Amino acid sequence: MSSNSPILAIDAMGGDHGPSVILPGALEAARQTGARLLLVGEKNLLEELLPGLDTQGADFEIVHASEVAGMDEKPSDILRRKKDASIQVACRLVRDGRADGVVSAGHSGASVACGMFIMGRVAGVERPALASILPTEKAPVVLLDVGATVDCKPYHLFQFGLMGHALARDLLGRETPRIGLVSIGEEEGKGNCQVKEAYDLLKMATQIHFAGNIEGRDLFTGNVDVAVCDGFVGNVALKLSEGLSMSLSRVLKRELLSSGVLPKIGTLLAKSAFKRFAKVVDYAEYGGAPLIGLQGVSIVCHGASNSKAITSATRMAALFVEKETNKRLVEAICANEELTRYGRSC
Amino acid sequence: MSSNSPILAIDAMGGDHGPSVILPGALEAARQTGARLLLVGEKNLLEELLPGLDTQGADFEIVHASEVAGMDEKPSDILRRKKDASIQVACRLVRDGRADGVVSAGHSGASVACGMFIMGRVAGVERPALASILPTEKAPVVLLDVGATVDCKPYHLFQFGLMGHALARDLLGRETPRIGLVSIGEEEGKGNCQVKEAYDLLKMATQIHFAGNIEGRDLFTGNVDVAVCDGFVGNVALKLSEGLSMSLSRVLKRELLSSGVLPKIGTLLAKSAFKRFAKVVDYAEYGGAPLIGLQGVSIVCHGASNSKAITSATRMAALFVEKETNKRLVEAICANEELTRYGRSC
Repeated sequence: MSSNSPILAIDAMGGDHGPSVILPGALEAARQTGARLLLVGEKNLLEELLPGLDTQGADFEIVHASEVAGMDEKPSDILRRKKDASIQVACRLVRDGRADGVVSAGHSGASVACGMFIMGRVAGVERPALASILPTEKAPVVLLDVGATVDCKPYHLFQFGLMGHALARDLLGRETPRIGLVSIGEEEGKGNCQVKEAYDLLKMATQIHFAGNIEGRDLFTGNVDVAVCDGFVGNVALKLSEGLSMSLSRVLKRELLSSGVLPKIGTLLAKSAFKRFAKVVDYAEYGGAPLIGLQGVSIVCHGASNSKAITSATRMAALFVEKETNKRLVEAICANEELTRYGRSC
Repeated sequence: MSSNSPILAIDAMGGDHGPSVILPGALEAARQTGARLLLVGEKNLLEELLPGLDTQGADFEIVHASEVAGMDEKPSDILRRKKDASIQVACRLVRDGRADGVVSAGHSGASVACGMFIMGRVAGVERPALASILPTEKAPVVLLDVGATVDCKPYHLFQFGLMGHALARDLLGRETPRIGLVSIGEEEGKGNCQVKEAYDLLKMATQIHFAGNIEGRDLFTGNVDVAVCDGFVGNVALKLSEGLSMSLSRVLKRELLSSGVLPKIGTLLAKSAFKRFAKVVDYAEYGGAPLIGLQGVSIVCHGASNSKAITSATRMAALFVEKETNKRLVEAICANEELTRYGRSC
């Protein structure tokens, strides 16, 4: 749907901290963007919480949903059995044209499943992709897929490149984003079977700027705007980055604390350094991972999201609606329809 | 071959810095371990260099090789056309029983190809694996494969687990190393097709301790001793770790330098912190990646290796010979022969 300002369905029940974190985060984004919010969740609970929150300048209404997707439930079970789970209700609001997009910090697998089977795929898109926006030393880079599609055919990777193009264009403000294919060597012909074939397709693609293979070490240099890989590789890469950043900062902290050299100044410096340091690995900066290739906008947030992350994610959803990112995505997919068909027949 | 002390063929010509770095590194290891070295390379060049080096207490001889594998040549071309390349000659010394192992910092692809086709695989091993020893906050972890076999069947991953067991046992001194399978969720049933099937095989394996799936973030926690993945995932993970560590340390350095708060103390602290920091990502600690599953020992070093890294790699080669790691590897492979066959038939 399309209106003057974006209408966003917020899964108010999702996330480790629930509505007390989701609501203030989303309301702040509503104030900043002018988006209208449909706060989806247990009506009584939300109505109890709202008077204690700063709702001024935010346009919202509550949409009741009696159930919540449990973190230990299977996505398929949530989809089949919990018809009134907040994430299902939110996705139906998009499907029915009552909202332009959905934001959820709940069960990621459920967000992907409900997005795919309730909102549905964009015509021509074979598989959706979950995109993570990684901070780098220069500009951020869009890494996709990070877990929506783990077993990929070469033409899936190819389409991730096309979709990444549309996403990075609007999100990073780059006219022609540089698309890199994650591989194990820069030269053409390096990689596993899927990557080698995807390379051939991307090389022939129209409308996009394919920059060739990139290696793992290039992910954080910012030399490409989009990094394409299958959902298995992307998920491992993303979680590895989180884990390594945390490990390194723990080691460093320990070292600075035990250095003995003017400990107070050490702590001061450390705080200052860590601020910047943390920025590089601060996933709250963008707040969530866009799930793309769907009819409508969907942002999947980390379960541990704080209010700031929810604000960022909601703003990102509003941006994609305003920029009509899906239109551009459809253009790129359509312009390369023949190549996708060719890839599928290989 | 087997003798009182290990005999190691050293590719003296390999690496970005050539014999002037390889020789002193290897000689130091010979002194430390009592290993006998066969220094393989251009005889005249090596004879010119040796008088300027500390050779005391090192047992060595020169084996002439007239050619060098170029870094821009294809491994298959080196294998077919450069019969007298130092890496080929070194691998033939192992094949012919004149040496127990080979150490090279030359063209990695050539080391893998020559190892596989000249030294040959251990009977029962389907594919060799390149293992990287990652430093973690606790004990090091063996990650394999990091690039020898990029297109993996489930039973290849299964065998990597068995080989990783033998390696970690001798290298990390753990009686029953914990084997983790790299996936995108800890629960059984998470992963791509290959990983799900490999899980089933590993669960049934005898002689090893399979600890289940691990995620990317667990790689640097040290909660498993061996992390199993295909060569594509492992290579991306390894290079990503290198790249991210370097990025983070650059950001931190910049921050400390520009903090303005008593810059000298900042630098002091930074130096101290960086020392420990670098240790976490110091790949010279172990020096090289064991290429396992071959008849004989092979250590593949980084092209940029310094002498310290070559010393570490040569010591590691000597350790594997002394511990007869390949015997243990064969035991684990044989004990699980039926399972491998079952996996191959799936």
